[in-house]
Amino acid sequence: MAERVQQVVAVMGRGVVDRGTGLASGDDLGLTRGDGCFDATLVRWDGEGWLVHDLDEHLERLRRSADALGIPLADDDAWIELVGDALEAWQGADEAALKMVLTRGDEHGDGTPLAFLTLTAVDERMQAQRAGISVVTLPRGYASDGFEGAPWLLGGVKLLSYAVHVSAKREASARGADDPVFTSSDGYVLEAPTSAVVWLRGGVIATTPTGATGILDSISARKILGGAEQHGWRAERRLVTPAELAEADAVWLVSSVRGVAPVTALDGRALRTDDEATRTVRALNGF
Amino acid sequence: MAERVQQVVAVMGRGVVDRGTGLASGDDLGLTRGDGCFDATLVRWDGEGWLVHDLDEHLERLRRSADALGIPLADDDAWIELVGDALEAWQGADEAALKMVLTRGDEHGDGTPLAFLTLTAVDERMQAQRAGISVVTLPRGYASDGFEGAPWLLGGVKLLSYAVHVSAKREASARGADDPVFTSSDGYVLEAPTSAVVWLRGGVIATTPTGATGILDSISARKILGGAEQHGWRAERRLVTPAELAEADAVWLVSSVRGVAPVTALDGRALRTDDEATRTVRALNGF
Repeated sequence: MAERVQQVVAVMGRGVVDRGTGLASGDDLGLTRGDGCFDATLVRWDGEGWLVHDLDEHLERLRRSADALGIPLADDDAWIELVGDALEAWQGADEAALKMVLTRGDEHGDGTPLAFLTLTAVDERMQAQRAGISVVTLPRGYASDGFEGAPWLLGGVKLLSYAVHVSAKREASARGADDPVFTSSDGYVLEAPTSAVVWLRGGVIATTPTGATGILDSISARKILGGAEQHGWRAERRLVTPAELAEADAVWLVSSVRGVAPVTALDGRALRTDDEATRTVRALNGF
Repeated sequence: MAERVQQVVAVMGRGVVDRGTGLASGDDLGLTRGDGCFDATLVRWDGEGWLVHDLDEHLERLRRSADALGIPLADDDAWIELVGDALEAWQGADEAALKMVLTRGDEHGDGTPLAFLTLTAVDERMQAQRAGISVVTLPRGYASDGFEGAPWLLGGVKLLSYAVHVSAKREASARGADDPVFTSSDGYVLEAPTSAVVWLRGGVIATTPTGATGILDSISARKILGGAEQHGWRAERRLVTPAELAEADAVWLVSSVRGVAPVTALDGRALRTDDEATRTVRALNGF
């Protein structure tokens, strides 16, 4: 292997397996159709034990994704036990990404889904991005109300069908930026491939609305907006254009694994940052 | 297993493997991100040997998909040999779907892609649909020019990220139809999840344009339009509304595995069919 990143893999009903074990058959719909969902969060060693960030919230969102797809999901206790098994086997760094994956299982099988998790060391590049990231806007192709009344488009579902997100990340890299931020066909900011956009302006902390936009309900953004009032900020969910965003007092990309990353540049234009506000947002997010 | 469908699985570099063998690890990007592509065609026993329909064209399209994703693909000879190995092991029905799958491989691996194929008996429901199918239109969320200048959206790439297509099929079933037909946000017919739409009106045989629409370049539609002139038809690629489509002399969904399926109803409204034209379209398609 070119790169030997630390990783533990555990399968529902089997426990920890050797890394590299083939899990999905050639008939698995997660593999052949991206027909499944996942969720991910951060695991950290806090000096005494392993802390899984917001596991309940992530299991709840995984359950909403599974329900939207009509795929049965093991109960929370089974997942919590599997996470425990994986952490027991973990010999790696103090920070790891926990990814929980569910597929519809074999297309011509008995309907048993495939469920597994991976624990992977958080890479240095992602850790470095917590100090600041540059982003470019990329059209996502959908209108900001494109998911209204169209549940088959699976808005808000954290799908395994993520190829466009990965492709947009490659495009952003090619343009010299760290991450893309998707925009709607009617010119609004949506989300980044694995993060929500949060911004502060004139004492109002805001993020983009879920629902008709089809964006994911970010657990990080929910926590940050949920606790904003105690810091004297008003919280708001609303649409914003890239031009408005560029006028904000501070902008962050927030996600469970990377945490809070101040956006330092948008489409090549330097953005204002606010270290004190970033500390507050981090405290609200939990790290 | 509830349903014991005939299937053979063969892996690039390994040959035929036991059905159910785990092929994708928990770190495989095809599995965790739908980051990969596939192509599919029909295999038939013609009385003397196995006929793989348009294998060259499907390998060419698979190569275009792989190139768009930047994933290395084995050469045609290796695929042709693998198909031969699978057919040698095939003990099943006279008709099978050949699916060739390529993923980016392990996220934290050495960059080796995963390539495999499956050969699966064509099910009776699909065979029955060749006699006629009912469809409902479902908005896809994109404008008909939504993919213009946005290569990161991967228009025309036969992605493993197919969950929305599968979900739309479930929605169509729930509405009592056989298949959905996607429409653009500006009101045009695009394609079905695994078929192109072809229609005949006043001696003009037409299908929807690729490119800015993001739809797949259908090999079946290309063959049908390519040979139309010898039957006195003019061939055209153009946008059409569902209302216009309902006024056609005949409408078909065409795909490599299902072949030519006359559309008998669109959004609950009965459509004209034309048996003679269907025979001609089938001849142009090769079966």
